[in-house]
Amino acid sequence: MKSVLIKGPWVAGVGTADVGVRDGKIALVGTAGPQDKYDRVISADGCALLPGLVNCHGHAAMTLFRGIADDLPLKPWLEEKIWPLEARLTAECVYWGSMLAMAEMIRGGITTFADMYFFEEETAKAAQKAGMRAVLSRGIAAGPNINNALLESRQLAEKWHQEGDGRITIQLGPHALYTCPPQQLTAVLDLATELDLALQIHVSETKGEVEESFARYGKSPVAVLEEAGLFQFPVLAAHCVHVSHEDIDILAGHNVHVSHNPVSNLKLGSGIAPVPQMLKAGLVVGLGTDGASSNNNLDMFLEMRLAALLHKGIANDPTLMPAGLALEMATSMGAKALFLQDVGYIQEGLKADLTLVDLNRPHLSPRHEPHAAIAYAAKASDVTMVMVDGKILLEDGRLTTIDEERTIYEAQRCLRAIED
Amino acid sequence: MKSVLIKGPWVAGVGTADVGVRDGKIALVGTAGPQDKYDRVISADGCALLPGLVNCHGHAAMTLFRGIADDLPLKPWLEEKIWPLEARLTAECVYWGSMLAMAEMIRGGITTFADMYFFEEETAKAAQKAGMRAVLSRGIAAGPNINNALLESRQLAEKWHQEGDGRITIQLGPHALYTCPPQQLTAVLDLATELDLALQIHVSETKGEVEESFARYGKSPVAVLEEAGLFQFPVLAAHCVHVSHEDIDILAGHNVHVSHNPVSNLKLGSGIAPVPQMLKAGLVVGLGTDGASSNNNLDMFLEMRLAALLHKGIANDPTLMPAGLALEMATSMGAKALFLQDVGYIQEGLKADLTLVDLNRPHLSPRHEPHAAIAYAAKASDVTMVMVDGKILLEDGRLTTIDEERTIYEAQRCLRAIED
Repeated sequence: MKSVLIKGPWVAGVGTADVGVRDGKIALVGTAGPQDKYDRVISADGCALLPGLVNCHGHAAMTLFRGIADDLPLKPWLEEKIWPLEARLTAECVYWGSMLAMAEMIRGGITTFADMYFFEEETAKAAQKAGMRAVLSRGIAAGPNINNALLESRQLAEKWHQEGDGRITIQLGPHALYTCPPQQLTAVLDLATELDLALQIHVSETKGEVEESFARYGKSPVAVLEEAGLFQFPVLAAHCVHVSHEDIDILAGHNVHVSHNPVSNLKLGSGIAPVPQMLKAGLVVGLGTDGASSNNNLDMFLEMRLAALLHKGIANDPTLMPAGLALEMATSMGAKALFLQDVGYIQEGLKADLTLVDLNRPHLSPRHEPHAAIAYAAKASDVTMVMVDGKILLEDGRLTTIDEERTIYEAQRCLRAIED
Repeated sequence: MKSVLIKGPWVAGVGTADVGVRDGKIALVGTAGPQDKYDRVISADGCALLPGLVNCHGHAAMTLFRGIADDLPLKPWLEEKIWPLEARLTAECVYWGSMLAMAEMIRGGITTFADMYFFEEETAKAAQKAGMRAVLSRGIAAGPNINNALLESRQLAEKWHQEGDGRITIQLGPHALYTCPPQQLTAVLDLATELDLALQIHVSETKGEVEESFARYGKSPVAVLEEAGLFQFPVLAAHCVHVSHEDIDILAGHNVHVSHNPVSNLKLGSGIAPVPQMLKAGLVVGLGTDGASSNNNLDMFLEMRLAALLHKGIANDPTLMPAGLALEMATSMGAKALFLQDVGYIQEGLKADLTLVDLNRPHLSPRHEPHAAIAYAAKASDVTMVMVDGKILLEDGRLTTIDEERTIYEAQRCLRAIED
């Protein structure tokens, strides 16, 4: 693997510095001496070097369903559009849909993504090929297929957990309380104990889901999940839009991690998660795009921007969610939210997951405070270099691991094959 | 002027078609025959051709202040950061700040912008040079300078109104009720009558502004402005965040046009304008970026996205503000909001203000409903060609009328010269 010196960018958390990468790790953060030899030097004057962006929640293969059904109520959207297509999904669909997602994510500076879907091994294969870091789960829901889902989860873990030099992490994915109630959840937790895996789950995404939980259990989804023992495991809870103060206390008490997905929550009419309150309670909150079918992008710059903007507007307080915090949520806090130990910061010894952003652009001029430039003004298209585990995945506008033209073609073909 | 045939894009409001441009106007929307001769043919397969995006509210020269003061309460932001800098502004600052804004706007597919600021003739000169369509006003506020502001407004109108083949329109710009109360507003309206000009004004941007109006006048800013006779003129009201049902009825009764500026309203903690209610009342509502100091971009794709997303999330209704409506607000309704007659649609005989968006990108794949692709997934960086009055301002990633490198340099220099 080639050693790389990134010369002179502004480095998040450090200031202007050189960053050297050797053997997939960050070997230097400081000033490179004239004697220091690297195979390659990337001149990064006027650029910002960020820990790779971390997309904490999504369904990569759902890029196939991008824009096939917008502006619909949730029920017909799911029942008439998404579910019939998902019923016809094939492994090939998931492979190419995932690859398409990764082409978009890498272009937008994302180095790590979390995922919950079907045929998840295909997403693992695509991540392996694309070189991304991935935290993957096979969705598990009650019903005739649950034993199959549990079996596939086990096989996925046995075959893929910590594969790709540790880039691939497997989690268990009970879909949500309303699809995987306590009795079935118990089987999932037994498997989590046996395989020593963390879990990801959708929690309190919609008001209706919370109302249903109160009607059925007399308490909120968070309270039911606590009682079911879920939070004794490491858990990433996606959405948490409709959580009460009591719910937040429960989540904080168990150190549950949260993925805030502002664009998807707006687009589906779910609402706006009380992120400032969650952060105040000490929760680890990362950011996620959710699937492209409810976004319709996988653009962490947009999620970061909305995380910074929305709560100011709702609370009438322009000091809430400052730029540096939004950037942290998109990077280091996101890595922590996914229980990853050795990425998320630009520090010597950590894995070299890095995103370079060119600030020499009209919409980022005049040159100013870099956190603000990134959180409020930079775009996915300003990303000029992306590296995961020290390997360059994007440079000079080209993806190095993905055949982009073929991927677009195959994704289109796969969608047509399962459409009516 | 060269004639141009744009071959085969999806055309907003039409479907797939060829669009021919001659003498600055749209000469064909349909199928170009083999005999039709054009100086140039632009192949636009898989692209979307939009009426040029219209930025209905802003302060172009404030790009100079992008990111110099974020995450602050409004009062110290204005009093300690923005106003001291504005007090030292020079004509040169405004020229280069405006030019920088135009570099960003053209790159993002914007063909027309509205503006209110000081040294507005410099913005006119820059717009003339850049080839953009512009609706410009010199801000007018009560105080020792008001007569000067009125004089400059008159001179601006006499010298620049309908200049540049009609690309430049001058309006009068009473800043807001709280800075230009009824007595002073009367002088502005007299001038509007004399010069036959429309007006632009900030209205009910913040809660505090509305409370102050009730304390001082016993009624809302909208009601006070109505009583002062403002709405007997063609008026573009920016923001309208804190407007009541009664206010909306007044605005609708006088056919006042509105600029919705969602990003700025969120960032400054002002709130979210009741746009669905305004549209339901029949108001013409365009979209605007406001100044880059409170955004921090001039990106109409982002404003369009937020216009489509925000109200769904607030009202828990994913069917609100569908994609086609958001696109309309960013284009045809925006042109109407600025009282422009001959742009905003792709129709034969109208002026050729056109924006070409390349949909052949991973984040826009698979190919799907174009309104949704544009409102929910396209980015400023997908714009590949921009034309105003039939003249190409952006192509192959290059601005044809603006020296971008110099503009970035001069803007930076101008800012440094007025900083502490």
